Amino acid sequence: MRGFGMHSVGDIGWIEKERPACGPWDAIVRPTIVAPCSSDTHVSHGGSGPKSELILGHEAVGIVDEVGAAVQEIKPGDLVAVPCVTPDWLAPGVQNNRTFSHDRGMFGSFKFVGIKDGTMAEFCHVNMADANLALIPDGVSPEAALMTVDMVSTGFHGVELAEIGYGETVVVIGIGPVGLMAIAGAALHGAGRIIAVGTRPHAAEVAKAYGATEIISYKEGPIDAQVIELTGGGADKTVMAGGNAETFAQAIRMTRPNGVISNINFFDVMDTFTIPALDWGLGMADKDIRGSFCPGGAVRIQRLLDLIKYGRLDAEKIISHRFHGFDKLPEAFELMDKKASDLIKPIVYMD
Amino acid sequence: MRGFGMHSVGDIGWIEKERPACGPWDAIVRPTIVAPCSSDTHVSHGGSGPKSELILGHEAVGIVDEVGAAVQEIKPGDLVAVPCVTPDWLAPGVQNNRTFSHDRGMFGSFKFVGIKDGTMAEFCHVNMADANLALIPDGVSPEAALMTVDMVSTGFHGVELAEIGYGETVVVIGIGPVGLMAIAGAALHGAGRIIAVGTRPHAAEVAKAYGATEIISYKEGPIDAQVIELTGGGADKTVMAGGNAETFAQAIRMTRPNGVISNINFFDVMDTFTIPALDWGLGMADKDIRGSFCPGGAVRIQRLLDLIKYGRLDAEKIISHRFHGFDKLPEAFELMDKKASDLIKPIVYMD
Amino acid sequence: MRGFGMHSVGDIGWIEKERPACGPWDAIVRPTIVAPCSSDTHVSHGGSGPKSELILGHEAVGIVDEVGAAVQEIKPGDLVAVPCVTPDWLAPGVQNNRTFSHDRGMFGSFKFVGIKDGTMAEFCHVNMADANLALIPDGVSPEAALMTVDMVSTGFHGVELAEIGYGETVVVIGIGPVGLMAIAGAALHGAGRIIAVGTRPHAAEVAKAYGATEIISYKEGPIDAQVIELTGGGADKTVMAGGNAETFAQAIRMTRPNGVISNINFFDVMDTFTIPALDWGLGMADKDIRGSFCPGGAVRIQRLLDLIKYGRLDAEKIISHRFHGFDKLPEAFELMDKKASDLIKPIVYMD
Amino acid sequence: MRGFGMHSVGDIGWIEKERPACGPWDAIVRPTIVAPCSSDTHVSHGGSGPKSELILGHEAVGIVDEVGAAVQEIKPGDLVAVPCVTPDWLAPGVQNNRTFSHDRGMFGSFKFVGIKDGTMAEFCHVNMADANLALIPDGVSPEAALMTVDMVSTGFHGVELAEIGYGETVVVIGIGPVGLMAIAGAALHGAGRIIAVGTRPHAAEVAKAYGATEIISYKEGPIDAQVIELTGGGADKTVMAGGNAETFAQAIRMTRPNGVISNINFFDVMDTFTIPALDWGLGMADKDIRGSFCPGGAVRIQRLLDLIKYGRLDAEKIISHRFHGFDKLPEAFELMDKKASDLIKPIVYMD
Repeated sequence: MRGFGMHSVGDIGWIEKERPACGPWDAIVRPTIVAPCSSDTHVSHGGSGPKSELILGHEAVGIVDEVGAAVQEIKPGDLVAVPCVTPDWLAPGVQNNRTFSHDRGMFGSFKFVGIKDGTMAEFCHVNMADANLALIPDGVSPEAALMTVDMVSTGFHGVELAEIGYGETVVVIGIGPVGLMAIAGAALHGAGRIIAVGTRPHAAEVAKAYGATEIISYKEGPIDAQVIELTGGGADKTVMAGGNAETFAQAIRMTRPNGVISNINFFDVMDTFTIPALDWGLGMADKDIRGSFCPGGAVRIQRLLDLIKYGRLDAEKIISHRFHGFDKLPEAFELMDKKASDLIKPIVYMD
Repeated sequence: MRGFGMHSVGDIGWIEKERPACGPWDAIVRPTIVAPCSSDTHVSHGGSGPKSELILGHEAVGIVDEVGAAVQEIKPGDLVAVPCVTPDWLAPGVQNNRTFSHDRGMFGSFKFVGIKDGTMAEFCHVNMADANLALIPDGVSPEAALMTVDMVSTGFHGVELAEIGYGETVVVIGIGPVGLMAIAGAALHGAGRIIAVGTRPHAAEVAKAYGATEIISYKEGPIDAQVIELTGGGADKTVMAGGNAETFAQAIRMTRPNGVISNINFFDVMDTFTIPALDWGLGMADKDIRGSFCPGGAVRIQRLLDLIKYGRLDAEKIISHRFHGFDKLPEAFELMDKKASDLIKPIVYMD
Repeated sequence: MRGFGMHSVGDIGWIEKERPACGPWDAIVRPTIVAPCSSDTHVSHGGSGPKSELILGHEAVGIVDEVGAAVQEIKPGDLVAVPCVTPDWLAPGVQNNRTFSHDRGMFGSFKFVGIKDGTMAEFCHVNMADANLALIPDGVSPEAALMTVDMVSTGFHGVELAEIGYGETVVVIGIGPVGLMAIAGAALHGAGRIIAVGTRPHAAEVAKAYGATEIISYKEGPIDAQVIELTGGGADKTVMAGGNAETFAQAIRMTRPNGVISNINFFDVMDTFTIPALDWGLGMADKDIRGSFCPGGAVRIQRLLDLIKYGRLDAEKIISHRFHGFDKLPEAFELMDKKASDLIKPIVYMD
Repeated sequence: MRGFGMHSVGDIGWIEKERPACGPWDAIVRPTIVAPCSSDTHVSHGGSGPKSELILGHEAVGIVDEVGAAVQEIKPGDLVAVPCVTPDWLAPGVQNNRTFSHDRGMFGSFKFVGIKDGTMAEFCHVNMADANLALIPDGVSPEAALMTVDMVSTGFHGVELAEIGYGETVVVIGIGPVGLMAIAGAALHGAGRIIAVGTRPHAAEVAKAYGATEIISYKEGPIDAQVIELTGGGADKTVMAGGNAETFAQAIRMTRPNGVISNINFFDVMDTFTIPALDWGLGMADKDIRGSFCPGGAVRIQRLLDLIKYGRLDAEKIISHRFHGFDKLPEAFELMDKKASDLIKPIVYMD
């Protein structure tokens, strides 16, 4: 079968591979729409995971093509959302944690790109299909469903991590697709004021549509000083869905005692957070610092699909570019890598 | 000064009293809009609290008329929302709990009607003004602010108690003003499907406007059977903002294991909950049963006012009747007591 | 193979069956020590589960005899503790809850006796062995390990459910083996005063050894009145590991607002809880009522084994009777059923 | 009256001042035993707080000498423990957080040394006496009570912050008095294995007596490498009660995903935490970083006093030096400042 991926670090292109084999609890899915993600471009530049002849992609909706003998719920022909995090449910890490994302060691549940080929291919392999594939319900478009598998789930998780409550003032750093979903998620979790940090005009429009009450930019000065002035002392919670290692100290500074800084941003292997003790109350500020990975499993995605079904969330607003045909994958991927100014999230229809 | 209240159980009318004295940390507020609540009618029928010559009312917005010598933040002339729960912040119960509603013994923080005269008067007394009065910010109407002090706070608390998360299926029993706010609060806390239980047509319309996805009624059969059929096994969470003691067993039955039944409904002194062990999994169903009182203090109300300020909530939709003039209090009170079919919540402008 | 169980409701005895087959993820264990539990006697009287030719028992330690082809960690010859709750980790309920005990529907994770033969046999079947069998570490006796699989886990879970914190005053109702473990667990979770409710002299001695500061009995009057007098108003938390449906109202009455009543007691199918609304603050007392099942999985049991290994807990003190030889199972079972006055927990060495 | 404190940064000695005035809600306490703390020496070197003619000390037990007119529970002559954190209970920060330590801005509830004279004097002032003074119950020695007001409360808070559960493997960095209390608190909260990090032989003995299962030292190599080897991958939780800014990255590295690093150590104004992103899973490791201040208020201390009363904790084992007479304060203070090798905690009897 044909897939799109990396031959080696920095060398991307078409890859020809055997169709993956289906274990007894597994499924083989034929992706119908996929979405490149900045994690994919990150991997292609050598970020993490296997480094050669790797098919990229970890966001997909598709049709189930084959299931193993022990699969009970999922059937060939089912239209499914493929969660980007598909835990090995027999691993001890599943019993240890609530997000199920570290099944065996850190990020162990991140299988696509992490330890095996991804979704940008004619077929992809999904482990433990009954627990890791979500049926797309009536009333939910495949495009919206595609957004739930990583963008919505990760963005909303930043809100859950921050334990945002009714009427709280929240800062969301970053207005890429995950940041936008964090904004939508904050509004959907009872936040009052939502200050978004970003510069791109189109994304800023979408941020407002999702519930941001104001947009600030580092171009107008240090964001921590801006937030402290706007709020008269600091936000209740800060979600980091962008920024760099330096942003960390700013986030801590601009969050009040007993607040939370919740990170859902992927930093670089070479980054170093440098946090002055003073900003963190000499170690005793009661400002929790949390960073977490997208939760795993089908139930999570089914719940997010229900949010769309019942009209709580229009996830398609983050789709900025639509490509038609498998052959457009390189173009979409390059767009993601170069980050055009009007880019939020591209998707590719495989047919 | 003049007030409206109860001479004795069942005997309501105008009461003439001295204007309350202002302690050093306290304030005297002149109510400008008040709202009768079913708790007031409950008290007037002998429910709880002092039983004679008691001014009723525990929901008000108003103008600060006087403050004690030790008050630092609140000033005469301030336009304030008066929380219905005003804790004694020096009591041990405050250090014991998160809602601050049981300062000394059960409901100790419920001062109005509970241990002293209420708000339906020319003036009312507020203990510990700096901690218990919320300034009404620009952009929030006094009418909407009035709804926050009990209706929004209690209804939303039912959602907090139930720990409603993204995409969960929620049942809200009751579509009176508190139930409607529980519906709005559930939608604002990420619920997916929201099944409301109620019969009044006008309130049902408002329930849908606040986010209910369907309305069921006991008139079409037992509500637990209806919910179990609709959901294919049970809801994730159930909020009780109405119903009677029998509804309890239904609520337990129709909520899934690891769900929560959260009660914000005031039962009668004579009620008895009768719960078959089988419905509660022989005692081991992992179905939490919680019942809680409206949270206390100014910070809570300030946060809810922010929800209105930033356009997350239109609290005025629950106001069904508006009376103009202090003299209309008896009429509004009787309306509340008789519960006309189109009634949701009446308010009375005092001037 | 030979097993001990029920031919039909009320008719117990030896049962001859085929040795169970081992699925690819499963294991067959040869029990070396088992312990009858009152749940087994409950089942034998018709309580729940399959009703005919059922091997009883759900507590065992043993030697792994066979593993399926897909098992990676567990090997034949391993000395293991068999958790009484062994979830199907691919079920949606696992993703929904933290105790993993309701994998598909209520108590779905309770396989032994619940849906298949139990542990009182030459061999027993364990589903998903890697996730559901705990290796017994050096320094932990098999007898102590046997106590972890249900008694310690359930008793300690009552403490976790009640969220017992440093210095809190706790009531534990019942001084059977689970109640005793709740007492030990409360002391090990920071409780201050621990008031145990029970009457048997031997068990009362053990209760004190595990940390009870006083023992009260219903024979000296209503226990709620006793607790309220002793504590000057009510306990912080109450764990129910005994009592009957009436005890429930007492437990609620004697627990303070913002306290928790946590139940780990199995009630009868015919029981009905009758709770006066007044005792529960008319529905708003902030007294949480929780009832939960023993948590599932190997990681839980490994942690409890570590508590024994590191000398935090002497679980063997609850073993009151030791029988040697498979043939003694009927005698041990009858002892459990009749509940001799000096009985706490009997065990049976199978060899 | 006479007090011991700092004339200016680095210049300590006797200070003569007026006896403090007693506000209507306040009390004046005559300390009978005090304990210098490293925070006091920190302040005397210019760490934080007022910088001139400041009486030091924030740990005391004593006799109530005077109470204000509005004080209801506390009476002259009462023997009390004085919490080191005494919130202004009317401040908004109290309604925002659970530890009540940031009443108005960061550390606002830390009054002694923070914003006013401390406890090392003939008399000290306590704000809001009813809510901030804890009666010492029968059966608790004043010396043990003295340890609760900061050492026990802070050390145990490190355990609460880390949410240590049954059987977890915990690292406690630092075996000074707070670290030792974190060890005792971990054992009292259900920890299994407790690895303490420290070098002083006497303190190491006490650490074992409180429940440490092993002691490691940076002298034998990097502590993160040692912990990872001992635990086969990392601890469940790490409590930092010592170490420096570099220790932070080690603590993160040696804690497993979904673990917690909880800090109760006071860092220096000039410290900078430098955390490689890789150690924190590129921002997504699910390793919570928390740092918190000693909780405030009387109820907290009453609970800790109960732990001593009911024999759960022997807090006196951390008292290494006892001085008799007010005049010995300089000697005790110097001992604390110089940190003799056998020092854990000195106390000074004021009479």
